[in-house]
This record gives sequence, structure tokens and C-alpha cells, in this order.
Amino acid sequence: MVGDREDPAIGDQGAEPLPPTPAGWVSLVGGGPGDPGLLTGRAVRAIGEADVVLHDRLCPREALLDLAPGAELIDVGKRPGHHAMPQEEIERLMVDRARRGLRVVRLKGGDPFVFGRGGEEVLTCRRAGVPVEVVPGVSSAIAVPAAAGIPVTHRGVAHAFTVISAHAGLGEDELQQLAQLDGTIVVLMGVGTLDQVLDGLRRHGMSDHTPVAIIERGFSADERRLVSTIGAIGAQVPEFAPVSPAVIVIGAVVAALTENVSGSAPQCETDPDTKTVLGPVLQALGPS
Amino acid sequence: MVGDREDPAIGDQGAEPLPPTPAGWVSLVGGGPGDPGLLTGRAVRAIGEADVVLHDRLCPREALLDLAPGAELIDVGKRPGHHAMPQEEIERLMVDRARRGLRVVRLKGGDPFVFGRGGEEVLTCRRAGVPVEVVPGVSSAIAVPAAAGIPVTHRGVAHAFTVISAHAGLGEDELQQLAQLDGTIVVLMGVGTLDQVLDGLRRHGMSDHTPVAIIERGFSADERRLVSTIGAIGAQVPEFAPVSPAVIVIGAVVAALTENVSGSAPQCETDPDTKTVLGPVLQALGPS
Repeated sequence: MVGDREDPAIGDQGAEPLPPTPAGWVSLVGGGPGDPGLLTGRAVRAIGEADVVLHDRLCPREALLDLAPGAELIDVGKRPGHHAMPQEEIERLMVDRARRGLRVVRLKGGDPFVFGRGGEEVLTCRRAGVPVEVVPGVSSAIAVPAAAGIPVTHRGVAHAFTVISAHAGLGEDELQQLAQLDGTIVVLMGVGTLDQVLDGLRRHGMSDHTPVAIIERGFSADERRLVSTIGAIGAQVPEFAPVSPAVIVIGAVVAALTENVSGSAPQCETDPDTKTVLGPVLQALGPS
Repeated sequence: MVGDREDPAIGDQGAEPLPPTPAGWVSLVGGGPGDPGLLTGRAVRAIGEADVVLHDRLCPREALLDLAPGAELIDVGKRPGHHAMPQEEIERLMVDRARRGLRVVRLKGGDPFVFGRGGEEVLTCRRAGVPVEVVPGVSSAIAVPAAAGIPVTHRGVAHAFTVISAHAGLGEDELQQLAQLDGTIVVLMGVGTLDQVLDGLRRHGMSDHTPVAIIERGFSADERRLVSTIGAIGAQVPEFAPVSPAVIVIGAVVAALTENVSGSAPQCETDPDTKTVLGPVLQALGPS
């Protein structure tokens, strides 16, 4: 674990001369889907021991301040009216701080390797000779549907799921492949391209009866859900007016737990308490 | 959070008569990929407060005993020379214990809704009138590749990934769809059908140069990896002789972090300490 790394300066007195700079390191940490209870033990430990936390969007900062007392918190994410820090600058900061011997946590929403640019940051650290580790997180792609009562796989319904980023829209080939795919489709970063994706799936033969769910701001107090079908949702979207971050689930699993149970609520029970502490903070990190 | 539920018997003396049976509940808990540090806070809390833990394969039991002191541990998983408990019997036990007013944790490897039959168990609890919640976990489908230095998505390489169970092999249509899919393929429960899947993907046009990795017993002390290509791996599998559980990753992401970095190791740094405490226990729960 991060906290168990030995400082090379400790217990080494009188031995060979120490290198001039103590070794810093970078930990790419998955912050999970926004419920503080869904942070892993390794994530909590890494944040708690960090000298520097480079985090995505963060408002309010209070909860992260509790987790990382005394650490330098650097907001590198997008905020309203505020451009995100360029990726190159984030990576430069990461390497710079680690080379000063500092313990750097790069905190991301969800999992660092699910649309988190974690791979690029691993490569940058390696090229710079900075030790880097990845702490996987609970992915919003799975957990946000789960909290809405939607299992991404379900026996007899779907034995595969595809997670796709629709940030820049999807190509015709992709839409065709997805429309024919026998499994659940989970779309992240798809609010801006929703019409293009849904229209494309219909055009390529996806049944109008295929269930669709849009889950906006999962795990936040402001969570909103729209559950419909590919055929009907287009007319409902303008009124629902989804905003980012949202997870879009397409496939029969959307209805798997609501059918055949008379009177049951369409969601699993969740505990509202878990949404209040760090939820808004990590939620703001966005889905991945 | 699970631990914040109020016992209806507390603080109620002298008020209305209590119902004859205190309310039990079921928590379907994701145990993560086998690193105890990748258990979430909610998972640790739910296990710690359980009266009964229904867990999959468990050898040794010592670590779970530490987490769930005093709880009844029921091994419902497969062991060598031992059949798994039928799903119906697991669900019967879950409901029976909850109806006795007990706090039941159903502990699964990975995430309960990724090939974990969690959806079926949610439905059973609802039909029986037993409160049920799902605690998402870190999925082996993402975290096991990550620990092997493989990001399931990587900018410019893959902006989608498909997770599929190959337990019963894959149909021709599925193989064709997967072979044409522009993204990463993660196969779980695919050791027994490895030849059928790899041959099928080649037959449907997947390039011989497509990288493939087999990661056996991820997060355990016995982890083994085979990194190859679709064209070459068939000849290597007999010697490697993979056994379950293993995660198979197919796509350019397998090589994304090893290319262009001279002399870098093909994996992220991991801390061996994190593998020793509960690793063998949760590992044995299998991938999901």
C-alpha cells in the first residue's frame, strides 16, 4: 500500500550517500461514482497520505480537505465559466511535484482507466522516471445503473455489456455494430450527442421497444432518472433536458428488475446518508 | 449506510407494540478483485455488522473471520471436489435468515451485478418482502487488467470496451460482432472455452496481430500472465495451461502502455503487501 513505502532517508544513516532528492511518487486514484462509502481502503489511505492532490472539479472543497489534511489541493477540472487545465499541464504538475519528493495523488471520478486518461498519465510518469501506481475504483458505468436498480448483466437477459464514450458522437460503423450487439450498452459522456446516438441505433435496426434509462448525477442528492424506450425517449428528452454527468443504459436489463414484481419500486434501496458527505465532491469529478 | 439502520427495538419502549419479528435485511456486497485494500468502506462496514455472511469459495477462512467476528459464515461456493450450492438454496438461505431478523451479507467477488447473479437475488428478496440493497464493488473486468498495466480504454486506442462471459462459449453471431467491434474485449469465465473464442475471432476476421493477454488469478500471490497476439497465442496456451479464474483481454490496449517506453516493465507497480491479507480469500470468490 502507498503508506507502506519506505522513505529512503529512514534507517539509512551512515550507509551509502543518499541520492540528493527523496523519491516522490504518483498514485492515480479512482474516486468511485460519488458515494464516499464507495471509496476503497487504498483510495482513502492514498488521499490521506498525499502531499498534493490533483483533483477534477471540486465544489465544495470541504470534504476533500477532511480526507487530505494539510495537502496542497490543485483543482485541475472544468468548472462553470472556467476551462479545464490542459492535460499536458496536469501531467507537468504531477511530475514536477513528484520530482520534488512529494506524494502526489491524481484523484479521478470512477476508475482511472475507464475514460480517465490514466494510461497517458502512467506513460508520462514512466518516461519521467517517476514511480506510478494505479488504484482502481468503482466505475460509474456499473455502479450508477446499479443504484438505479439496473444490473448491467442479468441471467437470460444480457451476458455482455459494452461501455462507450460518446463525447464526440459515434460513427456509422460503431452505431451499426452497437445496434446488432447482443448485450447491454452503457454510454458515458453522451448527453451532448444523445440524439445522434439514439437516432443512429434506431436507423441501424434497434427495436423501438428496447428500454433506455438516463441517470443524471448518479449518487448525488440531485439525481434524476428518465426510463423509457428507444422509440419513445426522443420525444421525452427535450422536457427532461439531461445535463452532464449522466449515464445512459440501453438494453433489456433496464427493465429486468422491475418486471414480474408487482408493486416493487424501480430501484434498489439506497441510504440517503451515503450521498451527503463526499458525494457532491466526487460526483463533480464526472463519470468514468 | 448499512450500519446506520436503526433497530426498531431501540428507543421504542412504552410506545406502540413492536412487530413480532425485527426486520432483517440482505446486502449484496461486491468484494472486489481480491485485494483487501480494494474493498469499499461500505463493503467493510456491511461485512463487519453482518450476522450471517453467505460467501463464495473461501479458503482460508481466517481473513473473513477477522472482518466478520461472530458472524455465521456459510460457504456457498464451489470448491475442488465439491459442488456449488444451487442458486435456489442460496436464495432460500438468504431469505430465511433475513426473515429471522438477521443482517445477511451475500459477499461476491468483483461487483454483484457483473455476472454475479445479483439481479436474481434482488428479485427473490423483493418477492419475499425482504429489504435488499446492493453495494457495488471494483470489478475484476477492469481492475485485473489495470494491475497488469492494461487500461481498458486509452485515448487514440480504444474508446469502448465490452465485457462478456464465455462460460458456455460464444455463438457465431456474437463472435462476428465482437471481431468487428472497434474496442477492447474483456472475457470473463473464458478459460474453458478459450480455443473456441480465439479461433472464432480469427475466423471472423480479427487480425492475427491483435494483442491478447491472459491474466490468471489476478491480485493473488500466484498471479500468472501470458501476453501474446491472436495469431500466436493458440500455440502458447497448452504450455501456459491457464486455469480459472482468469481475465482475458483482447485489443490494442494490451500493448498501449508497453510501447514507446524503452525498458519499462509491462505492468504498473503494485505493492505485494496488499495481496497477502485477504487476497487469497476474495480471489477465491472468482472474477466478476
